[in-house]
Amino acid sequence: MIEKVNLTDKFSQITDFWNPRIAGVLNGQQVKLAKFKGDFIWHTHDNEDEFFLVVKGSFTMCLRDKEVVLNEGDFIIIPKGVEHKPSAAEEVEVLLFEPANTLNTGNQVNELTREHLHTI
Amino acid sequence: MIEKVNLTDKFSQITDFWNPRIAGVLNGQQVKLAKFKGDFIWHTHDNEDEFFLVVKGSFTMCLRDKEVVLNEGDFIIIPKGVEHKPSAAEEVEVLLFEPANTLNTGNQVNELTREHLHTI
Repeated sequence: MIEKVNLTDKFSQITDFWNPRIAGVLNGQQVKLAKFKGDFIWHTHDNEDEFFLVVKGSFTMCLRDKEVVLNEGDFIIIPKGVEHKPSAAEEVEVLLFEPANTLNTGNQVNELTREHLHTI
Repeated sequence: MIEKVNLTDKFSQITDFWNPRIAGVLNGQQVKLAKFKGDFIWHTHDNEDEFFLVVKGSFTMCLRDKEVVLNEGDFIIIPKGVEHKPSAAEEVEVLLFEPANTLNTGNQVNELTREHLHTI
């Protein structure tokens, strides 16, 4: 069954932070939706590049050599192997594209790790 | 060099229709930006699922059994093998996500086919 997905509708159902939901699957990749607020952790994905698109709000992608402020309508691709830490002063809505089963905390496993993502 | 990409800025550089530009590459997939206006053609992608996100405006995705109207903030995934035809009464800005080298006209080749996409 082919149905459209509305981002505003889906984000209204998300009430927690750093907990990506799967909103679509294609070609072995997943479209994930997450709200960020506060500091995440420094981590690396050894095998996956990650795409972050700001749907609403803004956040800072901290890299070891600079910080990139992302506002609504901005996207950034973090290549595999590059250490990064998202940080959001205020709540922000983010769409991610990445290979299925990419772990949100990459090479780090702690209380922020989400191993079994829910579909939204 | 990791840089952010602003969708509004990139779309302002696109002045033609049905001519996707490559705005990002990750995991063998491409992020493409295109403006649609008018009717495209019926076609199928035999091996690739396609993701369409409306950034600005609206268009109709015609399928053989129904039509889906997509407005700003809506996305749809067309699985491989499913015939489809995008149609836009007015100019619309669309972000696509699909495997690298996906041909815009799928199994059809005609004057709308764009074989060598430019990076934007």
